[in-house]
Amino acid sequence: MRVIGIDPGLTRCGFGVVDGSVGRALTMVDVGVYRTPPDMDTSRRLHLLEQGIEASILKHQPDIVAVERVFSQHNVRTVMGTAQASGIAMLVAARHDIPVQLHTPSEVKASVTGSGRADKPQVTQMVTRLLRLTEAPKPADAADALALAICQIWRGGAQNRLQDAIAQNKLLASGKAAR
Amino acid sequence: MRVIGIDPGLTRCGFGVVDGSVGRALTMVDVGVYRTPPDMDTSRRLHLLEQGIEASILKHQPDIVAVERVFSQHNVRTVMGTAQASGIAMLVAARHDIPVQLHTPSEVKASVTGSGRADKPQVTQMVTRLLRLTEAPKPADAADALALAICQIWRGGAQNRLQDAIAQNKLLASGKAAR
Repeated sequence: MRVIGIDPGLTRCGFGVVDGSVGRALTMVDVGVYRTPPDMDTSRRLHLLEQGIEASILKHQPDIVAVERVFSQHNVRTVMGTAQASGIAMLVAARHDIPVQLHTPSEVKASVTGSGRADKPQVTQMVTRLLRLTEAPKPADAADALALAICQIWRGGAQNRLQDAIAQNKLLASGKAAR
Repeated sequence: MRVIGIDPGLTRCGFGVVDGSVGRALTMVDVGVYRTPPDMDTSRRLHLLEQGIEASILKHQPDIVAVERVFSQHNVRTVMGTAQASGIAMLVAARHDIPVQLHTPSEVKASVTGSGRADKPQVTQMVTRLLRLTEAPKPADAADALALAICQIWRGGAQNRLQDAIAQNKLLASGKAAR
């Protein structure tokens, strides 16, 4: 199975392509960051991002697109751009008829480190080890995108749907609490 | 000048196309709502929405796309979908090289009713009057999209850039306050 993980963002949007399946070795196929200039009009930044994601999907033909789930509670200043970037990733996947799965940051951390509270260096270290890389992927957004792809390969579809339902309920609950 | 106003949403996304300029009569060209099924996968809903907006832009060739500015403070439960829908509208505009302007709900209300705190029936009534329609546009999302287009025609570009700067500062301030 080939998965592209996308850590959404407007200034830096990480992507990582990983081949593998449960119980087998993982192989990194590609990794990088799409960047758009902060002083550019948001609509043009979204268009640049679309072109980047489109190119990666056409090049690598992934079976699944794994996107980090964005929560509206986190970082009010940048959440709009992050939400829009995640929407672009989901849109491009749907346009190519590729299924999309969302994972929360703590699900991703738990998958690769065993702890949902792991810090970024720990995630980067485990990603480097699991993919048998000679050096750590940089920047952190790239490592996070690879971790997302690994999480997708290991958790698979059924588990993910359950988690989606739970996350949705949590969002509903936090939405109620915020009012 | 021809403007398409887009009131972003995933379940109902209003659009309204208006011709006019400052000091001249306004003409409604088109109005409606793009709908996507709530039980459909979000990525497919975004793709459906993209196709709807794309079709309207190709059909009407607007000079400007006016989109309602989404604030992360409002309605935590639906803000992600709304932000993603607005991102799709901005993306499609950029792809066709059409400038995008954002307006806050209170800017739109103030433009068409004289009060930033006007309620929905008041906005609908003024939109109906200003466009000399024989009956009120329905649903409310469609009337809001027409109000957005009128706001864009009346406020124009320079004023809008000033408001953008102010809104951005407010967002920054509220972001700091929320931490």
